[in-house]
Amino acid sequence: MRFAVIGTGAIGGYYGGRLANAGNEVHFLLHSDYEYVREHGLQVDSCDGSFHLDAPMVYPSTDVMPQCDVVLVCLKSVRNHLLPALLPPLLHPQTLVILIQNGIGLEQDVQTMFPGLSLAAGLAFICSSKTQPGCVSHQCYGSINIGNFSCPDHTLVERVVEIFRQAGITTNIVEYHEARWKKAVWNMPFNGMTVALDTQTDRLLANPVTEKLIYDQMMEVVNAAKMMGIEHVDEDFVREMIDTTKAMTPYSPSMKLDYDFHRPMEIDYLYTRPIMEAKKVGAEMPKLEMLEAELRFLQEKQAQRPMQE
Amino acid sequence: MRFAVIGTGAIGGYYGGRLANAGNEVHFLLHSDYEYVREHGLQVDSCDGSFHLDAPMVYPSTDVMPQCDVVLVCLKSVRNHLLPALLPPLLHPQTLVILIQNGIGLEQDVQTMFPGLSLAAGLAFICSSKTQPGCVSHQCYGSINIGNFSCPDHTLVERVVEIFRQAGITTNIVEYHEARWKKAVWNMPFNGMTVALDTQTDRLLANPVTEKLIYDQMMEVVNAAKMMGIEHVDEDFVREMIDTTKAMTPYSPSMKLDYDFHRPMEIDYLYTRPIMEAKKVGAEMPKLEMLEAELRFLQEKQAQRPMQE
Repeated sequence: MRFAVIGTGAIGGYYGGRLANAGNEVHFLLHSDYEYVREHGLQVDSCDGSFHLDAPMVYPSTDVMPQCDVVLVCLKSVRNHLLPALLPPLLHPQTLVILIQNGIGLEQDVQTMFPGLSLAAGLAFICSSKTQPGCVSHQCYGSINIGNFSCPDHTLVERVVEIFRQAGITTNIVEYHEARWKKAVWNMPFNGMTVALDTQTDRLLANPVTEKLIYDQMMEVVNAAKMMGIEHVDEDFVREMIDTTKAMTPYSPSMKLDYDFHRPMEIDYLYTRPIMEAKKVGAEMPKLEMLEAELRFLQEKQAQRPMQE
Repeated sequence: MRFAVIGTGAIGGYYGGRLANAGNEVHFLLHSDYEYVREHGLQVDSCDGSFHLDAPMVYPSTDVMPQCDVVLVCLKSVRNHLLPALLPPLLHPQTLVILIQNGIGLEQDVQTMFPGLSLAAGLAFICSSKTQPGCVSHQCYGSINIGNFSCPDHTLVERVVEIFRQAGITTNIVEYHEARWKKAVWNMPFNGMTVALDTQTDRLLANPVTEKLIYDQMMEVVNAAKMMGIEHVDEDFVREMIDTTKAMTPYSPSMKLDYDFHRPMEIDYLYTRPIMEAKKVGAEMPKLEMLEAELRFLQEKQAQRPMQE
């Protein structure tokens, strides 16, 4: 099976790297460090065993990449407007495109761009970062859940999962809607609040006042999901998420890293879209709505300020 | 009529200074700059005419002050726990105590400390600051509204208002509950949001996203006030507040100055108490509740960090 990785960063570099390291055919699209990786290969420093790909198949453009059976989209969702230009060269009629991205509404929007496309969601639970050109640093966790969105061939999804597992990646098949909204239960409070209060997950949960706020925000997501008829997203899950996060090492979610490095934040798919979807079923998310407004303000404020190195 | 000023800062120094400058007998309690003012007097730089009090009657403790007919309490509300010790020497049976402070529930709490006391609220609309020892800087506005809370002698309140007017202070008698909640409509959104987003009033209203958030927060106060049966606090008033604030010069509310100078913020009376009072009548304030949590977090975070000069 032939894989393409669109966006060889902290996520794409790790999962694509693992697949390639296990002997799969993986074609990597690179942007800023294309020249470097072509020359020096790709280094993955991983808590689960580091490795180096001496000669990965790398490309500066999808125009020169072959058609693939599976495309892993690992771009930040703020760049999804590029997909109508990026994807076509990679697609044959049965290609499965897996969006390993955060948020709500991603698959729906890509489906609108490509009506007949087979789509799945990839929900990564991983701490990794790209610290320098050609080098991915994987600190902890690393599992991925796959939720089928529109692939008529379920066995294809199962075969992909099997390949992931053989490459040493803990992978499960999950129900699409449940998985996306469960992830939102964690993502919506922690991504934004660490930015708004310039802090990390542990500090938010060490203070009972902000722990209660995180709980309230999680319950806003739970209530919306319930009103959409989504199962297994309930208060028990919220308690579990809070306890799990307390047990984690102090963590800066991806939005916090984006903000700290003056990159655009994924406000649209992490806030605006789920809040809109919730409203459609009559669910209000006042505290997450306020957080969205704060993030938009902070993003604009940052854009008006030059980056200080 | 004999006046006492408890807390000779930006507010007490200005109003007490105006009263003394007009020839009234005013006794000032000072703390950090007592020695300085005793030696050099009190300077008031004011957009409405500057003046200097060469020999104001100043005291380092209320124990050595005389009983007064009117006491202006101009402390930050975070220090109101000091009032049971500070006030008694100043009181005779008819003394009127005016709390020139921000928030909801202040008079109720002081009444509990002193059950028979005659209390009124002083709602100051003023931009002033104490920039250095013995010097108050009054930039703009300056009016004060007086709402009678528990003074059985209405004519006393009227006489005080007349004295304020004769001293050149625009002063009006207002309905107590309406006035406190109207002030909260402005105070609750702007005080906290300028801290949470490290900004000023004009920037919050220049961005449509945060303007909408300020509007939502103001409407939370309006809805609570309505459910308490308070009149004239409605959406029109919210529109008026937003338009008035847009016409103001960029402004840092008192809580923003407190935070910037690492002083404790008045979270209790500006947030916790009104949110609690609203809940009692079944009104929710989710966005202001979130703001309260953010402020508590920021206050604790700041307390853990030494002040950087």
